[in-house]
Amino acid sequence: MLLYHDPRAPNPRRVRMFFAEKGVAYDTIEVSIATAANETPEFRKKNPIALLPVLELEDGKVLRESVAICRYVEDLHPEPNLFGTDAWERAQIEQWNRHAELELLWPVQQVFRNTHEYWKGRIHQVPEFADVMREHLAARYAWFDKELAQRPYLAGERFTVADITAACAIDFARVAKIRIDVAAQPNLAAWKARIDERPSSKA
Amino acid sequence: MLLYHDPRAPNPRRVRMFFAEKGVAYDTIEVSIATAANETPEFRKKNPIALLPVLELEDGKVLRESVAICRYVEDLHPEPNLFGTDAWERAQIEQWNRHAELELLWPVQQVFRNTHEYWKGRIHQVPEFADVMREHLAARYAWFDKELAQRPYLAGERFTVADITAACAIDFARVAKIRIDVAAQPNLAAWKARIDERPSSKA
Repeated sequence: MLLYHDPRAPNPRRVRMFFAEKGVAYDTIEVSIATAANETPEFRKKNPIALLPVLELEDGKVLRESVAICRYVEDLHPEPNLFGTDAWERAQIEQWNRHAELELLWPVQQVFRNTHEYWKGRIHQVPEFADVMREHLAARYAWFDKELAQRPYLAGERFTVADITAACAIDFARVAKIRIDVAAQPNLAAWKARIDERPSSKA
Repeated sequence: MLLYHDPRAPNPRRVRMFFAEKGVAYDTIEVSIATAANETPEFRKKNPIALLPVLELEDGKVLRESVAICRYVEDLHPEPNLFGTDAWERAQIEQWNRHAELELLWPVQQVFRNTHEYWKGRIHQVPEFADVMREHLAARYAWFDKELAQRPYLAGERFTVADITAACAIDFARVAKIRIDVAAQPNLAAWKARIDERPSSKA
């Protein structure tokens, strides 16, 4: 399998962490978003909307979207299980993976896109919307902290894909100068330290 | 099963359409976003972040997030299948459900939130961000039209959960005065007409 990725972008990192947890071998091709290599006609043949990551199979078929790629790999390599083993656990993991994506990662990406020098002159930036998202994120970090007082991982007693998504969001948030408030959010900080100890966090 | 919903909101509608396709019986409680009934301390016990829909089971357990609810119901009631029957089909459906959600529904909700009278004075609106999202949606409607020239449904030859998400996004977009350009986007219009013929579209 061949993964088109950018080493600095959060969505490709979700897939690399997932592959590392699974112990799955794969090749990579770097597609730099900084130099707009993802927007060339050639790459748009792989993904018409120019997003990363993209997975290419041996037979040339391509699969887009981080979670679609992770689910595909979970189907091919069921162990260790990261998406749940029964209906209720699968639902809980899906719920928390979506909370991590929609309540953390998506707002973080909006702060980055709408304020950072990286995108200046390349997209229409709206810093005022980034302010709204910063406020949203402060409330959500506090909520995740409260939830993580009740259990060691987002979806329950064990590490799952939801923890990967949240960790990638929180690490990427530092680019936008958003950090865990360790004093006020000790449970979130302790959870993050647990994730950082995993070898997959270096992927 | 008991579904907390708002009849006018797009995410609860995704679940109602899904339940209708499955032929699953359920009860509903209306939680009006217009009157902020979703923000009461009582409802926040069901969902701390005040979003709809929420599914409550017979034993009192609650499940949040539209897609988590749909996956749970798919596990309990596998037929008709709406999430895929093998690894590759499941991956394709996940990919297209995410495209429908992240490229259509999420931007549509941002246009609505940041411009509509409904939210005026209730949230910090940023109309300039809505303009960015409108431009994004015009490009994505054109892309979906191009894709739907190649097959009858988003993820392939048959109706799936991805079509539900896209249809709910496109219907809700009319609230923000965004409509399919029937002359320029005939494939998207024909697909939408196919979805509208299904009894579930009235759910």
